[in-house]
Amino acid sequence: MISEKMKPFVQNNSAIRAMFEEGNKLRAKYGADKVFDFSLGNPNVPAPECVKEAIIDLVTNEDPVLLHGYMSNAGFEDVRESIAQSLNRRFGTKFAAKNLIMTVGAASGLNVILKTILNPGEEVIVFAPYFLEYGSYVRNYDGVLVEVTPDTTTFQPNLKEFEEKITAKTRAVIVNTPHNPTGVVYSEETIKSIAAIMEKKQKEFDNVIYLISDEPYRELVYDGAVVPYLTKYYDNTVVGYSYSKSLSLPGERIGYLVIPDEVDNSAEVIGAAAIANRINGSVNAPSLIQKVIGRCVDAEVDIAYYDRNRKTLYEGLTECGFTCVKPEGAFYLFVKSPVENEKEFCEAAKKYNILMVPGSSFACPGYVRLAYCVSYENIVNSMASFKELAKEYF
Amino acid sequence: MISEKMKPFVQNNSAIRAMFEEGNKLRAKYGADKVFDFSLGNPNVPAPECVKEAIIDLVTNEDPVLLHGYMSNAGFEDVRESIAQSLNRRFGTKFAAKNLIMTVGAASGLNVILKTILNPGEEVIVFAPYFLEYGSYVRNYDGVLVEVTPDTTTFQPNLKEFEEKITAKTRAVIVNTPHNPTGVVYSEETIKSIAAIMEKKQKEFDNVIYLISDEPYRELVYDGAVVPYLTKYYDNTVVGYSYSKSLSLPGERIGYLVIPDEVDNSAEVIGAAAIANRINGSVNAPSLIQKVIGRCVDAEVDIAYYDRNRKTLYEGLTECGFTCVKPEGAFYLFVKSPVENEKEFCEAAKKYNILMVPGSSFACPGYVRLAYCVSYENIVNSMASFKELAKEYF
Repeated sequence: MISEKMKPFVQNNSAIRAMFEEGNKLRAKYGADKVFDFSLGNPNVPAPECVKEAIIDLVTNEDPVLLHGYMSNAGFEDVRESIAQSLNRRFGTKFAAKNLIMTVGAASGLNVILKTILNPGEEVIVFAPYFLEYGSYVRNYDGVLVEVTPDTTTFQPNLKEFEEKITAKTRAVIVNTPHNPTGVVYSEETIKSIAAIMEKKQKEFDNVIYLISDEPYRELVYDGAVVPYLTKYYDNTVVGYSYSKSLSLPGERIGYLVIPDEVDNSAEVIGAAAIANRINGSVNAPSLIQKVIGRCVDAEVDIAYYDRNRKTLYEGLTECGFTCVKPEGAFYLFVKSPVENEKEFCEAAKKYNILMVPGSSFACPGYVRLAYCVSYENIVNSMASFKELAKEYF
Repeated sequence: MISEKMKPFVQNNSAIRAMFEEGNKLRAKYGADKVFDFSLGNPNVPAPECVKEAIIDLVTNEDPVLLHGYMSNAGFEDVRESIAQSLNRRFGTKFAAKNLIMTVGAASGLNVILKTILNPGEEVIVFAPYFLEYGSYVRNYDGVLVEVTPDTTTFQPNLKEFEEKITAKTRAVIVNTPHNPTGVVYSEETIKSIAAIMEKKQKEFDNVIYLISDEPYRELVYDGAVVPYLTKYYDNTVVGYSYSKSLSLPGERIGYLVIPDEVDNSAEVIGAAAIANRINGSVNAPSLIQKVIGRCVDAEVDIAYYDRNRKTLYEGLTECGFTCVKPEGAFYLFVKSPVENEKEFCEAAKKYNILMVPGSSFACPGYVRLAYCVSYENIVNSMASFKELAKEYF
């Protein structure tokens, strides 16, 4: 009864759903504190107090007809202006309200820009490992996803292969830094190399190739890591942002696209993206939470909490004998599986009530992802189980 | 630079945008109270007090990690259960939480169900006049929109032509009652006839044909009009609902789909729709406002305000010599243009600072739509201008 195009999505969904249910089953059986569920990227650090204060003040003092009403499909002008100014202060950019389109999270933002630019059969390049939903988003518009294989030494992108895979059909490249699932931050050198390759290929094929920067983890960085702002390195860059992680508001579905003036025919692309935001059914990003963002534009969650988790889990696992790149950002560890088939490793971990996501779910088998956006106590308590698990391999 | 598929959307958008800007220009020139802008369906009656109370209570007393966090792609289980129970109480249905999927408004809900069921080239039937965005939603999935011409006497659907236009390629029929732009409520007799025709055609073509009921205006009815609940008349019915009008929350983007057990292979369709909700980029409906709906499930806006507007505008225009079907629901009047080309009539009205939408924007030329979700005072003050306008024709 469902459309042909939906059928593969439904089939692929079952593995993730099975993991969800596995966690619930274990929690019911052993109690939540005895289960070490590192499978989900759902922030456990609360939204900053300013979110609550802004919500109460807005519903108390603003006209509900305006607060909950329709606005331009691109979002409230004042909110977009506040965000643009904040970006300009922090990154030395020169955005105005018109360069921003408020979206239903970054997932919707990526869909909006892909709908805006992508023709059937055109290619979008991603660097493995990557968030598999990129494939869904590209297929939504009948595009073709092209994977660059991972460099498992550094998890920086494999630039030689990247250059080889750009063709006359390449319409966009998606990057994600800080990176899910590895926690790696792309260095300025990497960004410059990507930009140089793309400039060269744009000229070679006389075509616009968009660099789409998916950056929900921009603010979640540690040890003073710097995340270059990509629009400064390559003109045809579009940024997809989300407050899901930076303000711990994943359920609220709030984010934005930045389409800078430097993008080729930017006014046309901006206008079309606002229409795409409407006709894909979003119409506009949720109104109250837009206004909240306008007031909390420079607020931060307690990143120190994630940092302590990061260090504790990284050090604990390394001591056990496991190996992984030390993450500089996001809230994931990407650990090398001690056996070739990492799904066997995930199964073995379940015996100790440890849940992890196989790297195959990120097009990178042989690794597992651990999301450390859990309670610190949960990480501390998991260590004995990891030690037992390690004994099976080392 | 934009995709081929987006280009017609961008071209069609300019007329609506021009009207927006026309209104702003007139307001700047003459003052807001001197402009009679009946062009927008943006509710002017505030959300009920219970919305404000629920928001403050939720952010004050609930765990922000859960309140603003991810949940199932279908939405919070308790909220869906509350809505199901409310529908069951009011309409004698037998829905459970599993039959509901919370969506980013009805526009997104319609996109989700169309993505779930529609294959390229399959047909979706609509009854003119209709909300032109249905065409965008159908084209999003490469479907073909098939129009049934209007019965301009009653604005009930033209059933003879409807039956003729159902083919082996017909996958769905969209109805909207109470109706935008006419304010007509489909009678039980009409619904039964539509159902009988669709049953017959399903058998003839050995195919499932979905009846999609887009009903954001369900609660906005006058003079005791009854809006039949369509799932009770035809098994393969899917309801798309929005709180945009019933609770005056259009900017918040909150609504739901109902996929009853009676739908053929309902579990498969429900599962696929939840996935479509995720991969179209919504992921889930906004979380805080979902919880608010759970608490305000039986709340109502001040419908008497719209009713007074309806009567005042209908009587005023009729006295001037204009003719229209008296609306039983929604907040629109669909007035016959005194000249064949209704765009000329709209242009003439602008001289008196009156803004109306041409019927061609609803695939029904020769008529104009007036949205009376404006202030009562604005309607009263507009009467002198309508009298002047009428003098040009009668």
